[in-house]
Amino acid sequence: MENNTSQNRVLGTSSVAYGSPVLIMGSGSIVGQMENEGPLAGNFDKVSDDKNDMFGEDSWEKAESALQKEAVALTLSKTCAETKDIRFLYAGDLLGQNIASSFGLVDYNIPLFGLYGACSTCGESLCLGSMSVAAGYADRVMSLTSSHFASAQKEFRYPLEYGGQRPLYASWTVTGSAAFLLQHVNASGKSVSGKTIKNEYEGKYQKKIGITGVTPGRIEDFGIKDSFNMGCAMAPAAAWTIATNLKDFGRKPQDYDAIFTGDLGSVGQQALFELLSQEGIDISDRHYDCGLLIYDTEKQDVHAGGSGCGCSAVVLSAYILPKLAKGEWKRVLFVPTGALLNKTSFNEGQNVPGIAHGVVIETVDEEGTDTK
Amino acid sequence: MENNTSQNRVLGTSSVAYGSPVLIMGSGSIVGQMENEGPLAGNFDKVSDDKNDMFGEDSWEKAESALQKEAVALTLSKTCAETKDIRFLYAGDLLGQNIASSFGLVDYNIPLFGLYGACSTCGESLCLGSMSVAAGYADRVMSLTSSHFASAQKEFRYPLEYGGQRPLYASWTVTGSAAFLLQHVNASGKSVSGKTIKNEYEGKYQKKIGITGVTPGRIEDFGIKDSFNMGCAMAPAAAWTIATNLKDFGRKPQDYDAIFTGDLGSVGQQALFELLSQEGIDISDRHYDCGLLIYDTEKQDVHAGGSGCGCSAVVLSAYILPKLAKGEWKRVLFVPTGALLNKTSFNEGQNVPGIAHGVVIETVDEEGTDTK
Repeated sequence: MENNTSQNRVLGTSSVAYGSPVLIMGSGSIVGQMENEGPLAGNFDKVSDDKNDMFGEDSWEKAESALQKEAVALTLSKTCAETKDIRFLYAGDLLGQNIASSFGLVDYNIPLFGLYGACSTCGESLCLGSMSVAAGYADRVMSLTSSHFASAQKEFRYPLEYGGQRPLYASWTVTGSAAFLLQHVNASGKSVSGKTIKNEYEGKYQKKIGITGVTPGRIEDFGIKDSFNMGCAMAPAAAWTIATNLKDFGRKPQDYDAIFTGDLGSVGQQALFELLSQEGIDISDRHYDCGLLIYDTEKQDVHAGGSGCGCSAVVLSAYILPKLAKGEWKRVLFVPTGALLNKTSFNEGQNVPGIAHGVVIETVDEEGTDTK
Repeated sequence: MENNTSQNRVLGTSSVAYGSPVLIMGSGSIVGQMENEGPLAGNFDKVSDDKNDMFGEDSWEKAESALQKEAVALTLSKTCAETKDIRFLYAGDLLGQNIASSFGLVDYNIPLFGLYGACSTCGESLCLGSMSVAAGYADRVMSLTSSHFASAQKEFRYPLEYGGQRPLYASWTVTGSAAFLLQHVNASGKSVSGKTIKNEYEGKYQKKIGITGVTPGRIEDFGIKDSFNMGCAMAPAAAWTIATNLKDFGRKPQDYDAIFTGDLGSVGQQALFELLSQEGIDISDRHYDCGLLIYDTEKQDVHAGGSGCGCSAVVLSAYILPKLAKGEWKRVLFVPTGALLNKTSFNEGQNVPGIAHGVVIETVDEEGTDTK
């Protein structure tokens, strides 16, 4: 395998531009029932058949592990790859000590990098996964994240049985998981067993999709102390990552057909626009928030929108990548956003800082190079 | 900066051998009082001056954050580097949602990859940090981890005030943190401010030290259910990573002057030897466990030995790296070990699987290449 690594370029404060795109070969998504009652209904690969979203398990935590296990299985199935074709997993979730990932992935026997970036983890896993592939360390890796409404409420706020009231600026944790198979542009097209590994998007739409660069984020702390108000807690981090990405790559917002944040919701979106406007950046005509895309915030009683590690992951899998593959967009900036807290830090009166990781995703031409 | 990335080699199941060593420029360690009363007393850069190891803070969690903040400060100070010289941080801890790292590192404003590999996180952070530097994505990164006895007991078992009994096969969580500054062999020797960045080991011992390869680990689950018996829970993962490292690199145990596991303790060490002997591998004449090195298990009432994210980190910083720099060893395999559980998974009766990440560390000659 030829590496192309010498053409990777280190840019500005935090970014890397890859010499060749890291191909996204396919992605599997699984969600709860409520996620399939919103605007993206029908786009997910698998939906819970149980109104409690237990996925056949007897605890919420095990249900979330089942989500990760299934997201990997769906992705392998759609691409005709096998576990031995995947050199590394980059995975994380919201539960203490990443137990959804540990117990969901144990049976696959694939070397694992456990990650924690709160709801930004989907971005972190795509950054690290694509960096590894672009460096030639692996032909194929998988990046994945999950969240589950009930396990997250128990982990961060109150168990559902307590019946606590949620303020109107709170978001609703998405029950879902999505995995992404990333492949080196020069990797063999054959599985270890000799089967041809399929590119889901090329198969459906004659277009390939790749990650062409990343902008890992840093922690931003603007002093928010309310763990329900995650949108405002994360907006400064999203603003930093978006502004840094534009500066590092020498781009304007118009160089992206769309810019996605993870789960700022309606309240955080306004904060993001205000923070960026202070730097003379206006993304309002091309900004979407995965938390606002996944639910109908008027009809579904989710208040500020969706959130969770699974939110941006399933929206990327079920909505953004297919739109790229169809040619509706050519280049997007995907910026999952995370709020850094736990029950103890909240109870001890600490702030809720945020972090956001940026991933540039584009359609790629026949030779596997950028379209632009 | 020339990359040398084309000479990085992908080996076997899980390993990468770097074309040029990733230099460890320096490392800072800070520990609690008890850690400085064991066999490594006097080797640490800073020791708590408070018998409760609060490090000036009013909660155990904040004390652990103070450890991480100080480990970075010590490492920057020893190498004359500044925060702007560090492109990425790779950090993690044992607390839910990595809050020790988030709050300890927020003020440095350096892009952060939050990691969770339980007590293997020091290995994970050195793997990912060195992979990034070897790929040419950064001139310099920092890898770090921490643990605190009191915050870990509260997080995983019982708060100290409860006075719970610890079984004899339990380990004692190390209060400590260490950071490692990794630098590309071709990076400029100048800080952003124009100061010369110093190599701690070359300065003291005329020898450089580098990471020359990695073997990221996978989850191994042998059905252990007792969260106190972490040594046995982690031994299978350590055995897998050591055996895979030897196979991938085509080496015998004798090709390493020493092989270190993270925190198997006395019970887990025996399990490791038995598991490796089933594959015809005998490392008993060159195996050390960081958990057995840091405490005097006879006199310090720690039962099976030390554990925690900080254990392997401070032993590497204060003991292993100086021995390499002095020329007592030329090549070692460093394998921090982690037990994957949280309070909920334990209470719900789930197993305690393990994971271990392998890092090859060597003295390097004048030209920055391997001595062997």
